[in-house]
Amino acid sequence: MMKSSATKVNPDLAKERGTASFNTTELTYLLHGGRQKTERKRFLESLLVKDPVFSKEDAYVLDRKHGYERSLQKGLRAVELAKEHHITDPDEMSMLEKLSGAIFPFHLSKVMFIPTLKGQGSEEQKAKWLPLAESYQIIGTYAQTELGHGTYVRGLETTATYDKTTQEIVIHSPSLSACKWWPGNLGKSSNFAIVPARLIVDKKDHGIQMFIVQLRDRQTHQPLPGITVGDIGAKFSTLMNGGDNGYLMFNHVRIPLNQMLMGLAKLSPDGIFTKPANPKLLYGTMSFVRAVIVRDSCWLLSRALTVAIRYSAVRRQSQLKPGEPESQIIAYKTQQYKLLPGLAMAYATKFTFDHVWRLYEEMQKKIAAGDFSMLPEVHAITSGLKAFSTSTSMRHTETCRLACGGHGYLLYSSLPELYTILNASCTYEGDNDVLYLQVARYLIKSASQVQEGKAPPLSLSFLSGKTELCPVKSGAGFLDPRVQRKIYQDRTSCEVMTVAERLQSRIFSGMDSADAWNEVSVDLVRCAKGYSNCVMVLYLLESMEKLSGVSSNLRRVLKSLADLFVLWGIAENSGSFLEAGVLDCGQIQIIRQQVYALMDQLRPEAVSLVDAFDYSDYVLNSPLGRLRWQRI
Amino acid sequence: MMKSSATKVNPDLAKERGTASFNTTELTYLLHGGRQKTERKRFLESLLVKDPVFSKEDAYVLDRKHGYERSLQKGLRAVELAKEHHITDPDEMSMLEKLSGAIFPFHLSKVMFIPTLKGQGSEEQKAKWLPLAESYQIIGTYAQTELGHGTYVRGLETTATYDKTTQEIVIHSPSLSACKWWPGNLGKSSNFAIVPARLIVDKKDHGIQMFIVQLRDRQTHQPLPGITVGDIGAKFSTLMNGGDNGYLMFNHVRIPLNQMLMGLAKLSPDGIFTKPANPKLLYGTMSFVRAVIVRDSCWLLSRALTVAIRYSAVRRQSQLKPGEPESQIIAYKTQQYKLLPGLAMAYATKFTFDHVWRLYEEMQKKIAAGDFSMLPEVHAITSGLKAFSTSTSMRHTETCRLACGGHGYLLYSSLPELYTILNASCTYEGDNDVLYLQVARYLIKSASQVQEGKAPPLSLSFLSGKTELCPVKSGAGFLDPRVQRKIYQDRTSCEVMTVAERLQSRIFSGMDSADAWNEVSVDLVRCAKGYSNCVMVLYLLESMEKLSGVSSNLRRVLKSLADLFVLWGIAENSGSFLEAGVLDCGQIQIIRQQVYALMDQLRPEAVSLVDAFDYSDYVLNSPLGRLRWQRI
Repeated sequence: MMKSSATKVNPDLAKERGTASFNTTELTYLLHGGRQKTERKRFLESLLVKDPVFSKEDAYVLDRKHGYERSLQKGLRAVELAKEHHITDPDEMSMLEKLSGAIFPFHLSKVMFIPTLKGQGSEEQKAKWLPLAESYQIIGTYAQTELGHGTYVRGLETTATYDKTTQEIVIHSPSLSACKWWPGNLGKSSNFAIVPARLIVDKKDHGIQMFIVQLRDRQTHQPLPGITVGDIGAKFSTLMNGGDNGYLMFNHVRIPLNQMLMGLAKLSPDGIFTKPANPKLLYGTMSFVRAVIVRDSCWLLSRALTVAIRYSAVRRQSQLKPGEPESQIIAYKTQQYKLLPGLAMAYATKFTFDHVWRLYEEMQKKIAAGDFSMLPEVHAITSGLKAFSTSTSMRHTETCRLACGGHGYLLYSSLPELYTILNASCTYEGDNDVLYLQVARYLIKSASQVQEGKAPPLSLSFLSGKTELCPVKSGAGFLDPRVQRKIYQDRTSCEVMTVAERLQSRIFSGMDSADAWNEVSVDLVRCAKGYSNCVMVLYLLESMEKLSGVSSNLRRVLKSLADLFVLWGIAENSGSFLEAGVLDCGQIQIIRQQVYALMDQLRPEAVSLVDAFDYSDYVLNSPLGRLRWQRI
Repeated sequence: MMKSSATKVNPDLAKERGTASFNTTELTYLLHGGRQKTERKRFLESLLVKDPVFSKEDAYVLDRKHGYERSLQKGLRAVELAKEHHITDPDEMSMLEKLSGAIFPFHLSKVMFIPTLKGQGSEEQKAKWLPLAESYQIIGTYAQTELGHGTYVRGLETTATYDKTTQEIVIHSPSLSACKWWPGNLGKSSNFAIVPARLIVDKKDHGIQMFIVQLRDRQTHQPLPGITVGDIGAKFSTLMNGGDNGYLMFNHVRIPLNQMLMGLAKLSPDGIFTKPANPKLLYGTMSFVRAVIVRDSCWLLSRALTVAIRYSAVRRQSQLKPGEPESQIIAYKTQQYKLLPGLAMAYATKFTFDHVWRLYEEMQKKIAAGDFSMLPEVHAITSGLKAFSTSTSMRHTETCRLACGGHGYLLYSSLPELYTILNASCTYEGDNDVLYLQVARYLIKSASQVQEGKAPPLSLSFLSGKTELCPVKSGAGFLDPRVQRKIYQDRTSCEVMTVAERLQSRIFSGMDSADAWNEVSVDLVRCAKGYSNCVMVLYLLESMEKLSGVSSNLRRVLKSLADLFVLWGIAENSGSFLEAGVLDCGQIQIIRQQVYALMDQLRPEAVSLVDAFDYSDYVLNSPLGRLRWQRI
């Protein structure tokens, strides 16, 4: 046994770290945007670690009430810390929140109330409300979803009736199903909300508009007259229990006319309504939120993997060979097959997000210059990637939990909690299947363009009526990015064109187009899922090619991870590639063997690949995932 | 609107019930073993419903401490009820427990302590301990798993050292990793345990034997000297939090020699150890427990489906066609595709369990007559079915939760809880992948028998080196049970023989056999999973053929459910059937269309098919799943 300070590391973990072929710090800096940003993140974390308010010791034992109180305390303390340390960047406040493992009481204020004000408020409204919200003088939420209305926004029932006589708007919940339900920080924390409601002027319905409504007294925090508000109860995630999701009903609550957001739509005092000049602008915000969820799915999955992979290096169970000592469970191929494809997914998601983010920023620039052309494509891409990344990360995180056996089932392993948050993200900001169907609309439209001889959009430039069998016959051949790209593109092309034809043939034979859409919708979802996977493969491969200033050792490991992501996706969904006629059974066998070969290559890198995410023990808060692991 | 008492049912639900083509009561009786047993179940339930101790009103809001106390109260009250109503059948006590939604403090006593005593105690020991346990004078648990040792029982560290001088056995935990960890009802409830530990006599290790150890004082309930015991903390499932899983360490705790279980193994006062005559007997108990888990997975999944399908009938969201009222979400094909295959799975599991149970009883009779020949096969079948049914039911239950959107994410929907219990069942009583590898051993052995020209075991009589493409070319053709059977058998046959050859070729080329096993273990798991699915298909189809006294209407609906189970399994795993050369791509397309046609047939039956499970609102305890649903 070693005697130096290095002895503090569990020898199995130390051994695993010794087998990595790349420099972990180099990868950490690459993942976090350089040394400076990494150090800044660590500095923010250090503020939390030394502050008792942010202790996570009792994170897994607090009941709902105390969990909420703790979130509140952390939020307040974070605001103080930001003042003390001159933290003004809102992204850094978000980072403090993430690292602390809490939902701050002003979470929705930051992610929805303020951005909606910025996006849809008039200059006058922004001048009045933004300083109040940004200085925490008011805490706002965003109250859209109703008990009876989630996916279908046009179905919202809450009314906002203009009373010309007083120049007020009357906000009202006409039924129980109109009750707002789910908004975060609504149950207890917020005193204001932006409320989407149907604007009614002189009995004419102008559709859903946005209104700023005060919910609680700014001094006593008691609900104002006409407001019924409270907490909706326990949720799957215990962390989200700290987020005080709430319900809210209005009984003819009057607000002044100037609390309708008028940056886009307008209502004059004499009741003349003007539609927004470009309603598509709203899609921009949705793309933003969905891209952020892609990033968050990586943040959650990579923590689960850090826990499960470190545990698998340290846990010894059963004998690989009779008479030997019990083996590290990471040595079992079945365990590697559980964890390494998830690791590849986490890295693929990270590089995909970076790519999508650049796309989003490019679109925002164009929009500012009056060019909206990128909107439909970015909307489809972000919707598909949101659905694909959350579903797939949820699946891998569940596998991490199962891979840790009984220990993984205890809350303090952190794995149940990570699973439940990913589970929520499959529903919020658009149910994944509903999103896939939105993507499918875009795919079918593009297929029609191809059929009409027009050029499809950029991300679907490969769409065509023809698919050919891939000519590659060797494992090494399938590591060629051009081959990988072509396989995924051809699969998607075949699936899109086939389902488009199936849809059209139904319509041609007289079926109502809405019925026909429903009839083939299971296939549409499958095809949108395949497309989203394909987008991820394309972005990942492009990112790998564009990597600059990266050492050859690191580049080689990242290439293996990318290969594993691409080829595992084929091996696990072999049916769709076979059915599309892109690959034959012999090639699937070769690919499967290549996946196993990649696992052999990546196993010695695995612990260092999770180390590179740079999660401290404080952030992970899991005895199974500790950086040093003392042998017991 | 109707005005009679029938108006109390939500009209959408009433409409769905009106479209069923079969008699729900007939199916309920079939599922529950006849009218008499159904009524008995309802009687037991009525005892709980009217007793305030069993109220479930606060089930989703209790914290851990109060949740445990409530379980305790319910357990005590159940014992009183059993006395008052002369309930003596242990299965009826289990039913009370299940219906109450609690884990009673003597759960482990019933399912492990008493059965182990019966199976491994001597006549003398049974005479002494069984009456005490059965009359609740002592509460026992079964403390096997240790912090460092789960899957690999031979690795257990706890020692039981015989001290000839006093004729006592010294139970000791030699390290922290030897700490017992996870036993149910250990943390707070039990005062006795059966403890598997390594028997050491004169420094010779005789392997794992069983010992009865008193943990707590029978009057004060304080831990006895040398015993360290407590609760292991919060778990994924809130229900399981009521089960007070515990930890336990021994510091040289002395027990008399006659507290080693001596029905099979024996230790004489002068230290002479005698092995059990037939150690295989232990496999019988494992088969029993695994079969029961198959049944429980159906119990959990069918509740999730009842909730999700009723909710889908009542929930209206979006328009199927422009201008129409919002549609019941069950009308969307994507929703049907989420729920109906799960429904088919639940029914398939029920019929599979009945079949396995008959097999188990047949085996027990043979064992009683000294014939152990059925053991290996029943062991493989129950192990595989445990893994397959828990993993698949977990997946479908997660889908139920997602299918209910945000409402399904709230704990009170019951769906999160059902998921977490199924998630646990993938780990306990054998990690599913470890079980699949046990099944694979059996499959590979059988493959060798075939290669040597010997007859394989009964359930693998179809194993052969040849696979042929299925000749069927029409949707109707794939509804023929002979065709369905052949497709699954041929897939399994091909997968087993292929992986056996791959394994052998590695060994022939000089690889160590244990290394070779590990090398192909991912394929072995895949192949054991396919085999277990095949067993389910075979048992289901046989059950359908043997149905007697069932009306033709009901028979037709059950046939459609079976078809959906069989064909959906192909459509979702098309790759493996294509790779095995059993089906071609054109046939997969036909099967997929047939799956959609089956969904059309089953949608009008769906609500009645979940009604037939006969879950009351009390048992479901989910506002989303209520029998009558008042429109809001």
